[in-house]
Amino acid sequence: MKSDLDALMQARQLDAILIFGDAEYNPPMYYFVGGGHVSGALLIKKVGKEPVLFYNDMERDEASKSGLKAISYSEYGSINDYINEADGDMLMAFALRRKKILADHGLSGGRIGVYGKVDFSQNFGITMNLMKLMPDLEFIGEFGTDSVIQRAMETKDDVEVARIRQMGAVTTTVVKMVQDYLTSCEVRDDEVLLKEDGHPLTLGEVKSKISLWLAERSAIDVEGVIFAIGRDAGVPHSLGDPEDLMTLGKTIVFDIFPAEQGGGYFYDFTRTWSLGYATPEAQALYDQVHEIYNNVVENLDLNASFIDYQRMTCEYFESKGHKSPLNTKVPLDGYVHSLGHGVGLNIHERPSSSLAAGEDNILKPGVVITIEPGLYYPDKGMGFRIEDTYWVRPDGKIEMLAEYPYDFVLPMKKWQNNK
Amino acid sequence: MKSDLDALMQARQLDAILIFGDAEYNPPMYYFVGGGHVSGALLIKKVGKEPVLFYNDMERDEASKSGLKAISYSEYGSINDYINEADGDMLMAFALRRKKILADHGLSGGRIGVYGKVDFSQNFGITMNLMKLMPDLEFIGEFGTDSVIQRAMETKDDVEVARIRQMGAVTTTVVKMVQDYLTSCEVRDDEVLLKEDGHPLTLGEVKSKISLWLAERSAIDVEGVIFAIGRDAGVPHSLGDPEDLMTLGKTIVFDIFPAEQGGGYFYDFTRTWSLGYATPEAQALYDQVHEIYNNVVENLDLNASFIDYQRMTCEYFESKGHKSPLNTKVPLDGYVHSLGHGVGLNIHERPSSSLAAGEDNILKPGVVITIEPGLYYPDKGMGFRIEDTYWVRPDGKIEMLAEYPYDFVLPMKKWQNNK
Repeated sequence: MKSDLDALMQARQLDAILIFGDAEYNPPMYYFVGGGHVSGALLIKKVGKEPVLFYNDMERDEASKSGLKAISYSEYGSINDYINEADGDMLMAFALRRKKILADHGLSGGRIGVYGKVDFSQNFGITMNLMKLMPDLEFIGEFGTDSVIQRAMETKDDVEVARIRQMGAVTTTVVKMVQDYLTSCEVRDDEVLLKEDGHPLTLGEVKSKISLWLAERSAIDVEGVIFAIGRDAGVPHSLGDPEDLMTLGKTIVFDIFPAEQGGGYFYDFTRTWSLGYATPEAQALYDQVHEIYNNVVENLDLNASFIDYQRMTCEYFESKGHKSPLNTKVPLDGYVHSLGHGVGLNIHERPSSSLAAGEDNILKPGVVITIEPGLYYPDKGMGFRIEDTYWVRPDGKIEMLAEYPYDFVLPMKKWQNNK
Repeated sequence: MKSDLDALMQARQLDAILIFGDAEYNPPMYYFVGGGHVSGALLIKKVGKEPVLFYNDMERDEASKSGLKAISYSEYGSINDYINEADGDMLMAFALRRKKILADHGLSGGRIGVYGKVDFSQNFGITMNLMKLMPDLEFIGEFGTDSVIQRAMETKDDVEVARIRQMGAVTTTVVKMVQDYLTSCEVRDDEVLLKEDGHPLTLGEVKSKISLWLAERSAIDVEGVIFAIGRDAGVPHSLGDPEDLMTLGKTIVFDIFPAEQGGGYFYDFTRTWSLGYATPEAQALYDQVHEIYNNVVENLDLNASFIDYQRMTCEYFESKGHKSPLNTKVPLDGYVHSLGHGVGLNIHERPSSSLAAGEDNILKPGVVITIEPGLYYPDKGMGFRIEDTYWVRPDGKIEMLAEYPYDFVLPMKKWQNNK
């Protein structure tokens, strides 16, 4: 939680952190500012002090909504005031103004962490110039999920969990709309689904509906939606080919991870469906995924190591004859990814269940994680994944944030299974 | 255009450029990859050579859709293979793998530009490590709009213009829907607009409809929509308060800048409306904005300096008694911004019309620009802006990419003006 940040900074000997960029779609800045149209801002947080936000005058209203102490850049003059001293070099002009701001806030020396989802080129150039201008400052880059900010984000407070839960309600509402829509379609003799107008239903059209139904609920699929059928379902991060026709008896992996508009909290959810009927091979593989999903969920324990559940999942799948990361370096079929990940302002954040992750990835109170075992056989034209998002509550109970049934075969309302 | 890139790189003595990050919502990577769910990728383009894309195995299908030469990271091993050599430091492990990739592609020395909208902290940390590992490489950060990539992006080819034009058609369709919706509302005695259910219409509800109508057309308002009434209309980048009620006789600044889903091309457009009637003061100010807009547009010339039109606009507004950036350092009312900007994969790109911009910001063939004069008086509760997007065609003609009327007062269909 944000209240952990000072201790995290002290443990890393960081005297301050700087966050660059916009408030929207920029998790570190959003975490402090709470969104809104604040662009090209600078946030300074010194250890033990409240953060200060520097903004462009035109966005003063949006900056003031953040509730933070906010100072206009123009108090330090416009960039034009520095361009002569910088010999016309814009990167140096920005560095000179930033130097003045930092010095004015008592940061003429020390270790400073730097963050933000931003244009790398410009911020790298400014920072390199600033290093020359302020040789007593050391700028520190941190590994994404190991940064002090993501360490603070790892545990959520009640307000954050409520927002993730609300996004879970939106997600399952939209998933139900998709299920109802698909199962209500007419089916052609060749088992292709038909739209109301009698034309075949394409995957791209289903995805458009998903985007729309999310937008109606102030949610956005900015990171995409995976809605993949057949072979594409067998490649975990394939988004699916929009021209694919929706067809009975093929596995559909539907992985939906919307966020609040403006770059807020995510939810992450997957179901695998087979419309009308399933082949016996697909049903058997689905049952395995469902079985290990249930085994994992029943065994989730407060303060357990997340990685242990990945190991459990690998062992289960290998016992069924599949490859897994436990004994195959980069498996291209079988169980090819890790069991889950934290979810918050980033779709992937701490804790990690990767076998390579540190032992400090534990199910401590406040974490919000996904559990998502899967099996992938692109050459067989099939893939499977089941995923829900869970919260480790302060009382130690582990709670699913949005319920949804686990049916694999979805009966078609207007089609009889004659197989 | 992309074909200019080699010459631009040579002029800056760049031996190669590296682009980091995802293909979506990351303009430099999108420019080469064309979107799709390719995350955490690395693109290397050496001067005079075709680019090469490095991707994660799970995203091999999406990477192959790019049409680029694509190589899986796994050909260089997993990060775990480097973690011992890196003493457990993930940033160093990534730097070690990147060193191997660069050396393998003939980049053991030279000047390399670095780009991408990414997590700054991690990429800064990796780059700092790489500088230690490969002391003969110099990494170059460039100022956003002056980078070789944005210089290449400055002029658009026909395919890019067609996509911007298509986004303009979507934009004006949605603007018309908003206009029709607002003017069809019932009006309460206190001049507040009412929804179908008899409750007052809020600005937040109008914005939700805008998002939805955009989503229905595969467009996304990822950078927001400015729909601001009254005082908020007087602050150029205020998005507006969602609780505000839609009311007759107040200025509404409607600035809509949607992009293709997945982070593609933008369109940029603004109209200012006053529902039912306008105060004489508002009408007079609107007429000034409209007059200078027309003056500028009538005088746009092939290969003219964009800044000259900003100067013309400042002089016009100052002649009418308003402040402008020409003689006021940071004006907070009057004409407070610059006349326009390039539009493409970035909502703001080259050329610039800022008085501080270089003389090489010219209306050369292929640029796509906005023209958007405005006046802002937050203390009077009013603001005004008119904006359209123009293309400087290869034949030298300057063409508006989407037409829309310039009515300021929008008559209400169910309300009589008794003023």
